Amino acid sequence: METADLILTNTRLAPGFGPDRGALAIGGGRILYAGPEAGLTHDGSRRDLGGRVVTPALIDCHTHLVHGGHRAAEFALRLEGASYEQIARAGGGIVSTVRATREASEEQLYQQALPRLKALRAEGVALVEIKSGYGLDIETELKMLRVARRLGMGQGVRVVTTFLGAHSLPLSHKEMPDVYLSDICIPALQAAAAEGLVDAVDGFCEGIAFSPEQIARVFDAAKALNLPVKLHAEQLSHLGGTALAARYGALSADHVEYATEADARLMAASGTVAVLLPGAFYALRETQGPPVAAFRAHKVPMAVATDANPGTSPLTSLLLAMNMACTLFRLTPDEALRGVTEHAARALGVTDCGRLAPGMRADLAVWDVGDPAELAYRIGFNPLHTRYFEGQEC
Amino acid sequence: METADLILTNTRLAPGFGPDRGALAIGGGRILYAGPEAGLTHDGSRRDLGGRVVTPALIDCHTHLVHGGHRAAEFALRLEGASYEQIARAGGGIVSTVRATREASEEQLYQQALPRLKALRAEGVALVEIKSGYGLDIETELKMLRVARRLGMGQGVRVVTTFLGAHSLPLSHKEMPDVYLSDICIPALQAAAAEGLVDAVDGFCEGIAFSPEQIARVFDAAKALNLPVKLHAEQLSHLGGTALAARYGALSADHVEYATEADARLMAASGTVAVLLPGAFYALRETQGPPVAAFRAHKVPMAVATDANPGTSPLTSLLLAMNMACTLFRLTPDEALRGVTEHAARALGVTDCGRLAPGMRADLAVWDVGDPAELAYRIGFNPLHTRYFEGQEC
Ligand SMILES: [Zn+2]
Ligand SMILES: [Zn+2]
Repeated sequence: METADLILTNTRLAPGFGPDRGALAIGGGRILYAGPEAGLTHDGSRRDLGGRVVTPALIDCHTHLVHGGHRAAEFALRLEGASYEQIARAGGGIVSTVRATREASEEQLYQQALPRLKALRAEGVALVEIKSGYGLDIETELKMLRVARRLGMGQGVRVVTTFLGAHSLPLSHKEMPDVYLSDICIPALQAAAAEGLVDAVDGFCEGIAFSPEQIARVFDAAKALNLPVKLHAEQLSHLGGTALAARYGALSADHVEYATEADARLMAASGTVAVLLPGAFYALRETQGPPVAAFRAHKVPMAVATDANPGTSPLTSLLLAMNMACTLFRLTPDEALRGVTEHAARALGVTDCGRLAPGMRADLAVWDVGDPAELAYRIGFNPLHTRYFEGQEC
Repeated sequence: METADLILTNTRLAPGFGPDRGALAIGGGRILYAGPEAGLTHDGSRRDLGGRVVTPALIDCHTHLVHGGHRAAEFALRLEGASYEQIARAGGGIVSTVRATREASEEQLYQQALPRLKALRAEGVALVEIKSGYGLDIETELKMLRVARRLGMGQGVRVVTTFLGAHSLPLSHKEMPDVYLSDICIPALQAAAAEGLVDAVDGFCEGIAFSPEQIARVFDAAKALNLPVKLHAEQLSHLGGTALAARYGALSADHVEYATEADARLMAASGTVAVLLPGAFYALRETQGPPVAAFRAHKVPMAVATDANPGTSPLTSLLLAMNMACTLFRLTPDEALRGVTEHAARALGVTDCGRLAPGMRADLAVWDVGDPAELAYRIGFNPLHTRYFEGQEC
């Protein structure tokens, strides 16, 4: 018999291993075995999980977790009936987050993001994607990514970074998107990549942001650096971002409420994951949901994420995002769970986690529930029992 | 100078004391002083709260926290496309909760409810209303109320109980509502009241439940016992429950999505609080929101609660209910905060908490936020720093 560091017995494995009692063997921070208890061939110290459900640790594959300040005053103003102009005059909108992010030191940004990261971790999250995109100048974009890297150290959560210089136009470049791309965004990307700060490159393709042609320039720069791409696409209208993303073999197209069946076909062919972000849909009171039936029909993997950001989705609960994906987008609880594990890993191009299988990292969540569907069913409730990160309870 | 047990300095008092730095003096479990630091006339050990926001501890004035089992499998079935009949055949619906509640022992019901109570407490809640209504037989209705009373002991949360025998018809009395009321509901109410288990009496006035005339019978029985009444009214249609509730001087009318301006006028005259339950509205994907403008115009106090229940609102976050009240019903953050403090207390007929004023219980929540609006703005985030229960940190 081989020796394992730890054997977890009397568990219900989810997803993918059916309803039966099972066991997991862990060694060297990896899963050595996952399956029926009778099939165990490892020896080692055992822990009886009392029939609790075990899932891969959760993965939040789309966040803007690093940013300065918050927009609670703007939220209140809007509800008090202030007009768009009044809010703009009061300094609201993304401009205010850009200002606060530029003004904050690296340490301040880190301290502000930390409670949000801890909120995710407390729900069994072990891998978080964090984007830049509130700097819109070279220095601040790099600062955000350095903070994201630092959040990935010593907190028991892995962080993958995404460069999102093409998020919005800074006030300095109003009506000059191409100048902004040439002078700021692409040089920032190159500088950040040279510092090893970039795992992927993203953009916001929308009438209020960048056109597909402009995004293509950013993607070309990413390809030249050998970096994978992804895109905020088809959130508020159909501009063709999803097709562009598929053409570039993007890891994911995100939001995609206005994507079409034709888009779904292209995404399936390119292996692009649909990242559903129900928090923004909820907060903006949108009515057009993503084409879930088309994604199912064409076998486009669907991920679910928080989109944690101060403007349109101040959401830091991935469990709640799962419930919203079911309630608002009609995903099944099983789809929602795969959306924050297996498919979220795929959306990040990460292959060593998100499934309960030998060789995967032993990043696990043990839940005080009897049925995995409870994770998506409950609203604002966290039944996490234990989290394992690389095989260590923490 | 008088002596206080504790003086909290450098706080931002909310709601009602404006944006300035303030202080609180606490003695004998009560608030002795709340106002500008310069006005303090008490001596005692001081704690600097670093500018954090202090609110009254939160109050969840409408819950079905005590119940057997959960309905996650039904939630999944529905999303997988099962028909109403298939779900009923699989034992779904309120019937399944009634069965599970009858089958559970008092100890089991207590242990199942405890994590839900703790989830509320972790968000700074210090007073929770809990209803019966999943027994629909005398014995189980009393069992539920005994469990509710027990939850109010030793957990640092006060519990007020509500008898809700007129929640639904048991299978044994299908199509026989008046027989059910005579033989089960009213005798159960009388027995529960004799045991001191009832603080108020509630009903569900709806096409799928009881008519106004039937509810009036329950209210008459309550009045004979000198118990205040409240009502689930106008949730799915306009049946006249709100007018009935106002006629009986009800503490609250709850849900009230289909209430009219005339109803609002009656509620204002009778001092009846409108308890808004956005969790059920969200989970049922309703589209008709309550007449907030009419409630404002006629000065009907609006409370906000979780409606925590296994079928239509498996929500155990009062902070999320605040966000939903703003996002879905367009309350302002200030209205949402009053809705879970001052107006929630009023909905329960409780006069010793819910405000920061001398003589009130020192049930307080200290928040790691700079602006009280953040409490409603954030989604799925708990910024509680410290909770005081009768002046004790816990
Ligand atoms: Zn985003
Ligand atoms: Zn209710």
